[in-house]
Amino acid sequence: MLPDLIQGIRGQSRLSISQAISLIEDNRDEGAELLSEIYKDTGNAYRIGITGPPGAGKSSLTHNLISAFRKIDKRVAVIAVDPSSPFSGGAVLGDRIRMTSHFSDPHVFVRSMATRGSRGGLAQTTQEVGEIFDAAGYDIIIFETVGVGQIELDVIQATDSVIVVLVPESGDEVQMLKAGLMEIGNIFAINKADRAGSNKLMITLKNILSTLTIEDSQWLPQVVATVATEGKGIEELMNSIDAHKSFNKTQGIQKVKIDDRYKKRVMKLIADDLMDDFWKDKNHSELHSELEKQPDHRQSPYNLAKQLMMQK
Amino acid sequence: MLPDLIQGIRGQSRLSISQAISLIEDNRDEGAELLSEIYKDTGNAYRIGITGPPGAGKSSLTHNLISAFRKIDKRVAVIAVDPSSPFSGGAVLGDRIRMTSHFSDPHVFVRSMATRGSRGGLAQTTQEVGEIFDAAGYDIIIFETVGVGQIELDVIQATDSVIVVLVPESGDEVQMLKAGLMEIGNIFAINKADRAGSNKLMITLKNILSTLTIEDSQWLPQVVATVATEGKGIEELMNSIDAHKSFNKTQGIQKVKIDDRYKKRVMKLIADDLMDDFWKDKNHSELHSELEKQPDHRQSPYNLAKQLMMQK
Repeated sequence: MLPDLIQGIRGQSRLSISQAISLIEDNRDEGAELLSEIYKDTGNAYRIGITGPPGAGKSSLTHNLISAFRKIDKRVAVIAVDPSSPFSGGAVLGDRIRMTSHFSDPHVFVRSMATRGSRGGLAQTTQEVGEIFDAAGYDIIIFETVGVGQIELDVIQATDSVIVVLVPESGDEVQMLKAGLMEIGNIFAINKADRAGSNKLMITLKNILSTLTIEDSQWLPQVVATVATEGKGIEELMNSIDAHKSFNKTQGIQKVKIDDRYKKRVMKLIADDLMDDFWKDKNHSELHSELEKQPDHRQSPYNLAKQLMMQK
Repeated sequence: MLPDLIQGIRGQSRLSISQAISLIEDNRDEGAELLSEIYKDTGNAYRIGITGPPGAGKSSLTHNLISAFRKIDKRVAVIAVDPSSPFSGGAVLGDRIRMTSHFSDPHVFVRSMATRGSRGGLAQTTQEVGEIFDAAGYDIIIFETVGVGQIELDVIQATDSVIVVLVPESGDEVQMLKAGLMEIGNIFAINKADRAGSNKLMITLKNILSTLTIEDSQWLPQVVATVATEGKGIEELMNSIDAHKSFNKTQGIQKVKIDDRYKKRVMKLIADDLMDDFWKDKNHSELHSELEKQPDHRQSPYNLAKQLMMQK
């Protein structure tokens, strides 16, 4: 069963890829075994993160990037991350319909992920699905998220190039960005750049970026104006991605990113195993019998932790 | 030394509180010992989280809440969380000056926290500082953050009542909220409500809230209009906080929150200890000798993790 699946992934079978993703989502041990087996087939894909506020046109831009990469014969996989929210579901799925024009192209694979609570969390599952695509010979893997919250940041920070998509009306969001997203964007796409306010946002962004202290060994984020619905600015965006990719490579940043992902993965696997081992019967029941007491009759969490560790 | 410090905290000495905070930030073992000792003095404070985009007036609102709580003789501590960003520092500190009018009041303590990388991360340190204030007899602890990113969400989710501050211009941010913050706010304050667009935002928010499936056992988020600079709407905001606090208590939610914080604290302490133990000399050097190989010569992270766990 597993050997067939692995053979299928290597042979770029869509069915095998879908089955592999289900396996990762459903079965912890078999999923890990699969990922372990295909590890030697990975390491060739370039990972691009696309984030920004809802309505900025991330999906349209992704659609354009797929077309542009297909023109230069790159195989493209898209992982659209949408942490399940009672609100966001509808709109995001609507946007995504645009991408269906690629559905008949065997070298494009679009996958939405919205499930909470898969093992290790959505951010980890997303990366594992990325490894499947990597092993299946996709050259480009696009991770598309709405730029809010912990999961999305975790997803984005595990990519090689991050594009933050803004719209001319994003003045307020740039304020938000100052406090967070600004530090993770390698390329800023001002989408819907035919609207009023586009130039002003461009200048604001460039001003903010110019206040950054950038060493020669660091990438100076680029700002690109796009109109995704008309395909405008996509060439420039592709050039920026290419420039950032080259920069990562020549500066040894790409190697650091790969090493970092490897290290984090090992540490996460160990952490999960250690916690699973630890919180078995005895320790679990001791914690719960402490929780059954009234808060002011409990020993301090520090004492309890110390005591449980000593019994280990 | 430690007994003196504990005595000082119980005696509400500002100097002791400051020293205790420094200890927590600087020294892992002594900090944990201190927190363990004062645990039995905690459990009386009510924790309020205040979040929202920069410029929404969070600090002004906090200033008003301090005054309002002082009028009913409550002691108030404020922990202003500002994960160090090259950009946000200036503005936030500027805003914070407004709060200095309380500096002469011995029953108000304002503390900014911006240090990255203290043990266990900023979110944990913030909670530990909260415990110091709790033990020092502060009735209300306000956690003020800019609502972006992982750390801020971790901080906010550990409070009892969360106020999300918006301004009439926040239309776009409400879009953002849909995808994230909306689910964490118990009370929405539309600040600067004398500006155009205030009513529209109020209606939009209430519409979104009305689409939520709220069980009887769940809190229906309230929306309050405020003008913090003029002290308008503060009474209503105080009433909402009070209503939410009562609701938490009667529905048993407060107990669940306290239990959850206790459980998470124990589990985090154990996780830190287990990881420290594990990543000592041998395992650490094995991981690093694997990282020295080229990525395509490494064994899979899954294999390495398995192997290291088996040697344990």
